[in-house]
Amino acid sequence: MTPDTMKPFLEPRSVAIIGVSRVTGPGTYNILENMINAGFSGRVYPVNPHADEILGIKVYPSVLDIPEDIDLAIITTPRLEVPRIVRECTQRGIRAITIVTQGFADGDDEGREMQAEIVRIARQGGARVLGPNTWGTANAFNNFGSGFSPMMMAKIPIGFISQTGFYFGLPAVAGKGIDLGNACDIDFADGLEYFEDDPDIRLILLHIEGIRNGRRFMEVAARVARKKPILALKVGRDEEGARAAQSHTGTLVGKDEVYDAAFRQCGVIRVGDLEEFEDLAKAFLNLPPMRGRGVAVITPSGGAGIMAIDLLRKHHLRLARLSPATLDRINAFTSAWQRIENPADIWPAIAVAGHPLDEVFTTVLDSLLQDEDVHAVMLLLPTTQAEQKAKVLEIIERGGEKPILRWPGTPEVEQPGAALEKTGRIAVFPSVDRALRALSHLHGRWSYLSIDGDRT
Amino acid sequence: MTPDTMKPFLEPRSVAIIGVSRVTGPGTYNILENMINAGFSGRVYPVNPHADEILGIKVYPSVLDIPEDIDLAIITTPRLEVPRIVRECTQRGIRAITIVTQGFADGDDEGREMQAEIVRIARQGGARVLGPNTWGTANAFNNFGSGFSPMMMAKIPIGFISQTGFYFGLPAVAGKGIDLGNACDIDFADGLEYFEDDPDIRLILLHIEGIRNGRRFMEVAARVARKKPILALKVGRDEEGARAAQSHTGTLVGKDEVYDAAFRQCGVIRVGDLEEFEDLAKAFLNLPPMRGRGVAVITPSGGAGIMAIDLLRKHHLRLARLSPATLDRINAFTSAWQRIENPADIWPAIAVAGHPLDEVFTTVLDSLLQDEDVHAVMLLLPTTQAEQKAKVLEIIERGGEKPILRWPGTPEVEQPGAALEKTGRIAVFPSVDRALRALSHLHGRWSYLSIDGDRT
Repeated sequence: MTPDTMKPFLEPRSVAIIGVSRVTGPGTYNILENMINAGFSGRVYPVNPHADEILGIKVYPSVLDIPEDIDLAIITTPRLEVPRIVRECTQRGIRAITIVTQGFADGDDEGREMQAEIVRIARQGGARVLGPNTWGTANAFNNFGSGFSPMMMAKIPIGFISQTGFYFGLPAVAGKGIDLGNACDIDFADGLEYFEDDPDIRLILLHIEGIRNGRRFMEVAARVARKKPILALKVGRDEEGARAAQSHTGTLVGKDEVYDAAFRQCGVIRVGDLEEFEDLAKAFLNLPPMRGRGVAVITPSGGAGIMAIDLLRKHHLRLARLSPATLDRINAFTSAWQRIENPADIWPAIAVAGHPLDEVFTTVLDSLLQDEDVHAVMLLLPTTQAEQKAKVLEIIERGGEKPILRWPGTPEVEQPGAALEKTGRIAVFPSVDRALRALSHLHGRWSYLSIDGDRT
Repeated sequence: MTPDTMKPFLEPRSVAIIGVSRVTGPGTYNILENMINAGFSGRVYPVNPHADEILGIKVYPSVLDIPEDIDLAIITTPRLEVPRIVRECTQRGIRAITIVTQGFADGDDEGREMQAEIVRIARQGGARVLGPNTWGTANAFNNFGSGFSPMMMAKIPIGFISQTGFYFGLPAVAGKGIDLGNACDIDFADGLEYFEDDPDIRLILLHIEGIRNGRRFMEVAARVARKKPILALKVGRDEEGARAAQSHTGTLVGKDEVYDAAFRQCGVIRVGDLEEFEDLAKAFLNLPPMRGRGVAVITPSGGAGIMAIDLLRKHHLRLARLSPATLDRINAFTSAWQRIENPADIWPAIAVAGHPLDEVFTTVLDSLLQDEDVHAVMLLLPTTQAEQKAKVLEIIERGGEKPILRWPGTPEVEQPGAALEKTGRIAVFPSVDRALRALSHLHGRWSYLSIDGDRT
């Protein structure tokens, strides 16, 4: 198997859609219509024996009648017709087949038998099958998508391999997506190999119900994880979930602890839900590596600083131990009875000693970034004023590559003055807990990559 | 001590502000200016021996010179002057004193001694003291606030008692707030007694670094918790945090496990961070009680349903066991090879059997709400269409008092069609994890209140 396996699924130049409905418009789930609306520029050949033309496009009675080469066939007919159509596709020389139709291993015994037959037919004919029971593939970089609901695409540098199509119908979380569905043939390892050296993709998200070929997955994942972060949302943790997964995609779900250990061994980062995935994606795509566990906290609220200490411990990070030189610099501002330490409560310097907020903040940030034991800075600040922007950027440059995270103080409302994070050097999170959880994974990734040698 | 202790702090008719600066405008942290801008309609008497008039208001050289009765004195002078001014306040017959000034138990030994002296003077003079090192109080229901930053107020039915003023300078999380600061006199129990029968307040949030009089706190909290949910954000879990809390407000922080046990015993719900507080507040203020652990899940995505199962277990909830009658009703839609169970994956009924989404959704929701083992319904739905609104509301009414929660499928983007939750009968959460965490606390509260007898 070569990394080219997935190319026709994500970069097809010509596509046949077998079983296109004549009914179009909102609520009709017409794949052809969605594909055209998305702006796909390749050739599209609809197949339907009962129509001549759909949306002004010539329709063929059978895939055998299409006069040109087809990179990808997408099958959406009722399930009983699927084995015959797969055979016709292989006769036509098609090597990539997406089966959208449901009711195979996700259905009943008859479905399971048909799925096995499809795999046999495809193997004999030299074709690879994605699905059945899948949304197929989506690629925002060439406006291609096989979803039956309208898809919102954005060129986000995330590759998504899933066993659910849910996220295909929603605002884009990934620039390229592969829904494995029942995964009768194409599996996670194939998707990982496609994204491995893909210059559009900098981070990979897996949504896993179960993996059949564990050995191959671990080989490929361990190799790819050294090049790009792989985040895994593994679901079906308990018996009830496992049973539901079996009826969802016919997947056999293994013991949860086995997955945990396997992920750790091959450097795959397990996330608990999609919210955690979004947080980690934000950190990995926007922040530099975290080269140690020491965190400096800057806040105008002693109370907020104390909350952060609890959460540092929760996420296996620690307060940076500031050097005497750093302490001298940041305490130039304070009155006799108040010292700034870490967390750096900057409020007394402003309210008691009367220094301007901007001056205190930039001096403290500068000093902390230059401290050797500070590996990241957490800002608990309601606003970062636009006027400071140039100066803060200069300070960040001088401080070297250290992650800077900010919690604006409220989960719901983004403050109007929050301009700094637009620079891409500060990532903003809706809670300190989530910020530090992401930071902890950033450090874990750095540790993982710092280990010499091949773990595969 | 009577519940009237806090009345002059939150509902003063006349206020003296001692140590008002002549400097006003943005960035000057002028309490008088903020109080006027907030629209406070009581009488305000600024005190400053070096000014005759500030913002067009007559200024008095000393609190002793004010000709009328004063409900509340707010002191913002340098710390060395505070003991003398407290004495003058008691001489003037003022019984409520807020000390904003920092540098007492939060500072050095000299500060600690001054704080003890202030308490002695106030006790002798029959006055109660809030602070020092406090933002004081805020009450959106009468536009009163003693914050030194501009405050955003909203009549939210939440009472907030904290040891940090952080949240006073941010978009309102509470309709009434009390910042205890160093809590030299006024403590959590006083605030709880004020909110106990306050008709404006339906939920109480505590931000706790440490509690001095544990016995009184537990007595009052156990009584109040049976009337209104009390959420507690207890910070300073480990040694570092405890040390920081001591330098923040001079508070001695006890063992974390002791707090855990105490909260459980008196029915106080502990939250991990402000995000969890916001989620729980949303649930408690908007949803009916959850009278059992059974949850029904409705989703168009089998994959999303499986994620929910893991999270139900995590939060000590369970899938409702649907009755044969319910199963018959919801399976009227499905094809032979596909059954709707719980989680109720409604997609095959739409995509395979061809029923309209609206019809399937409303029938399934209706059936599940009427099932005896369903104590709450979790919707994993990207949109709830406005057209359905009347029908869905009718179904919800018929279903009786059961919480309905919705996750729109993406943490970041609120979908345009999301109109149903405006009815106040469905609460929307940014993740399934957070929705089910809130639901679990809703059930916990119902269990707590269902236990007969007095736990105090």
